Amino acid sequence: MTIEKVLDQIDADLPQSIERLCELLRIPSISTDPAFKGDCATAADWLVADLESIGATASKRPTPGHPMVVGHIDGDGPHILFYGHYDVQPVDPLDLWDNDPFDPQLEETAKGKVIRGRGSSDDKGQLMTFVEACRSWKAVHGNLPCRITFFFEGEEESGSPSLIPFMKENTEELKADIALICDTGLFESRVPSIVTMLRGLLGEELIITGPDKDLHSGMYGGAAINPIRVLLRIIASLHDDQGRITVPGFYDGVPELPQDIRAQWDGLNFDHKAFLGGVDLNTPAGEQDRSALEMIWSRPTCDVNGINGGYTGDGFKTVLPSKASAKISFRLVSQQDPIAIRANFRKMVQDMLPPDCSVEFKAHGASPASQMSTNHPAFDQARTALSDEWPDAAAFVGCGGSIPIAGHFKTYLDMDAMLIGFGKDDDQIHSPNEKYDVESFHKGIRSWARILDAMTQS
Amino acid sequence: MTIEKVLDQIDADLPQSIERLCELLRIPSISTDPAFKGDCATAADWLVADLESIGATASKRPTPGHPMVVGHIDGDGPHILFYGHYDVQPVDPLDLWDNDPFDPQLEETAKGKVIRGRGSSDDKGQLMTFVEACRSWKAVHGNLPCRITFFFEGEEESGSPSLIPFMKENTEELKADIALICDTGLFESRVPSIVTMLRGLLGEELIITGPDKDLHSGMYGGAAINPIRVLLRIIASLHDDQGRITVPGFYDGVPELPQDIRAQWDGLNFDHKAFLGGVDLNTPAGEQDRSALEMIWSRPTCDVNGINGGYTGDGFKTVLPSKASAKISFRLVSQQDPIAIRANFRKMVQDMLPPDCSVEFKAHGASPASQMSTNHPAFDQARTALSDEWPDAAAFVGCGGSIPIAGHFKTYLDMDAMLIGFGKDDDQIHSPNEKYDVESFHKGIRSWARILDAMTQS
Repeated sequence: MTIEKVLDQIDADLPQSIERLCELLRIPSISTDPAFKGDCATAADWLVADLESIGATASKRPTPGHPMVVGHIDGDGPHILFYGHYDVQPVDPLDLWDNDPFDPQLEETAKGKVIRGRGSSDDKGQLMTFVEACRSWKAVHGNLPCRITFFFEGEEESGSPSLIPFMKENTEELKADIALICDTGLFESRVPSIVTMLRGLLGEELIITGPDKDLHSGMYGGAAINPIRVLLRIIASLHDDQGRITVPGFYDGVPELPQDIRAQWDGLNFDHKAFLGGVDLNTPAGEQDRSALEMIWSRPTCDVNGINGGYTGDGFKTVLPSKASAKISFRLVSQQDPIAIRANFRKMVQDMLPPDCSVEFKAHGASPASQMSTNHPAFDQARTALSDEWPDAAAFVGCGGSIPIAGHFKTYLDMDAMLIGFGKDDDQIHSPNEKYDVESFHKGIRSWARILDAMTQS
Repeated sequence: MTIEKVLDQIDADLPQSIERLCELLRIPSISTDPAFKGDCATAADWLVADLESIGATASKRPTPGHPMVVGHIDGDGPHILFYGHYDVQPVDPLDLWDNDPFDPQLEETAKGKVIRGRGSSDDKGQLMTFVEACRSWKAVHGNLPCRITFFFEGEEESGSPSLIPFMKENTEELKADIALICDTGLFESRVPSIVTMLRGLLGEELIITGPDKDLHSGMYGGAAINPIRVLLRIIASLHDDQGRITVPGFYDGVPELPQDIRAQWDGLNFDHKAFLGGVDLNTPAGEQDRSALEMIWSRPTCDVNGINGGYTGDGFKTVLPSKASAKISFRLVSQQDPIAIRANFRKMVQDMLPPDCSVEFKAHGASPASQMSTNHPAFDQARTALSDEWPDAAAFVGCGGSIPIAGHFKTYLDMDAMLIGFGKDDDQIHSPNEKYDVESFHKGIRSWARILDAMTQS
């Protein structure tokens, strides 16, 4: 079997693969903060050079925001597009990191070796699993088994504002037979999975203004309206006592889970206790009558992701602030319409405003949920390949996160997408001390080699 | 009349008085922020030197926090203690200032000349009115008409942690026949006033912790508890629909306003519309059945002065935070017991905590309300002197703010206190673009000269 030689080459090259990943991790490509714009460009340049080193024709492609990286390797057989993102989340609160988030370290832990640093799991480490698989394949065979297009984005963590325009302008170049996306995880940190159901995301920021300047609470307290209190009342009203979301029409297009999917998910024997226990919680929050897996994969949510108002520094300041603001996100499922929900949410807030208060809204993305069609033969080929590599058989699963790219590939490029990733639940993505297991990285690279092999045998 | 010569000297010396105040304003003595500790000491040194320049024996006196300044001028007649504070509020949000808050400017405005800068009104400008009155008196007469002790604090804006211990340790040195405090304002920016009723202040900070780390809202949203939502529900429940505060026992010791005081306050013809209109509001918030003046002077309040949780930078981050915190203050009246209210508030919060959440409390001061006895003859002497200086006759009034020092003088030094100040409602104390009218400064200096004269004639 030729695949064995590729797998051997992957094993032999692992130390170099890790070093290349660490190089990429050292670039602080935080897309949401304008201060890191230059670093995003540097990460894109690094990827262009790395793709060229494995024989691709690659280039950094400008957008109104951070650049895309597109690379091509010619070949026979199917045309595969691989997608990943090179931008990372902000690192605050910085004091909760044990090390510099952009000075990645190889660490021994009780659960094995990990690569620690911002982006190690989300998504630089995952992105590099595929690149490294191609590198080893090419080292063994001199060429790749099919035509491959690499497509790397630098704005995934900041709402992907340039993605759809770029896809529309480069349809011919990007359209392939199938897309592979590496930005998800192993189910229960163990079972290799292909995600076929993803939640959508609607992001809203609201800024409430009361008095036209900050006031002294001794002089005005009791008589003048406090915009923090107004904001709190509005947000507190977004859920009822049962944990259901009160935005009018919110549950339109939210079906009950079909019996076959429920049965399949029940078969995964998800350990709810361990899932919450891993972050020091015991009691499921949210809707009272749903299992945790059902809530995460197939139920919509509303969460406050940030709130700010008045004096928040050291000590105390008896200010009655002029403004208070919050960032709120809705995870959406099935047929929920983000545009309709945004309108209903904004009207609900407007209707709750007391006299003398005004509200300003900022939109932060609006993408519907995605449901993959699993008819393409690649789905079963990949499931078999993953089952060969990992101790557990691979599964089709849902995902609570929002990876709108999969839906966009279908909508704008008429292309199915397979979401396969190797992250673990304790990777602490979006949190301090993010890490990626060396096992995830190593077996991830091997998995892609097997998938390429399976997809090009026929 | 000898007082005329002093008033003439004050008028002639005004440009130099303003320049001295500006020197003091250039020192950024923000007491609540440890970064400005050195500046607080510099401000104290400046005051020591300035008191020495008018013949006082003065010194900077160490405390565990920022230093006190104490000065003495010997003399015959009554012994008067004058209190002010040299520390100032933080200046954030800095971008709302038209100029550097610590580069004071003399500005022409439609309402007359103002001195613009942090601390110009609260309290450096007010503090210097008394010092400048003494300076001119001494210039004319060679000595002062009575024994005077100057007592300047550097922690008033950060809860005065060193004040009571210092007063206890220096009782003999500080005890005088009466205290004068200059940290209040003209009623309706016009009527010279002696404050005889002050609200107390209870400051509480609460930090709610849910999961033990920040989580990805896609992975955990819906299933894991969000501490921001917990905090919001708690704070939203602190008021009922009528604007009354729901902390158990909160209204114990809150009497209805006596008829004679209500009649006196009604006689002031307070312009509620203009009071709220000045900060772009129309509708009184708070308790539905109370007048604005009653709410500010004689009713207790609960306000959120700051709230913080999750991601609050530019852009969006779908974090489900581990912690959320708020700073809450209660303004207290009459016999309300801050210690009992703190205990009841904390118990109420604890009782509302859902499973898996914990709360940490930080205390930020707890002072009861103050009620002055107006039996001391100085009250009528000062009222007459103020009526001589200003177009409007002086009044005894209440004050919504909390100046616990007045109560402390009574409790620890058995000394009545007269609160007389010249601030205006639009001084924007605690806010960007703080200012002090040159009229307030000039007539304030003249007022103190007249009061010294009135108190030492008999």
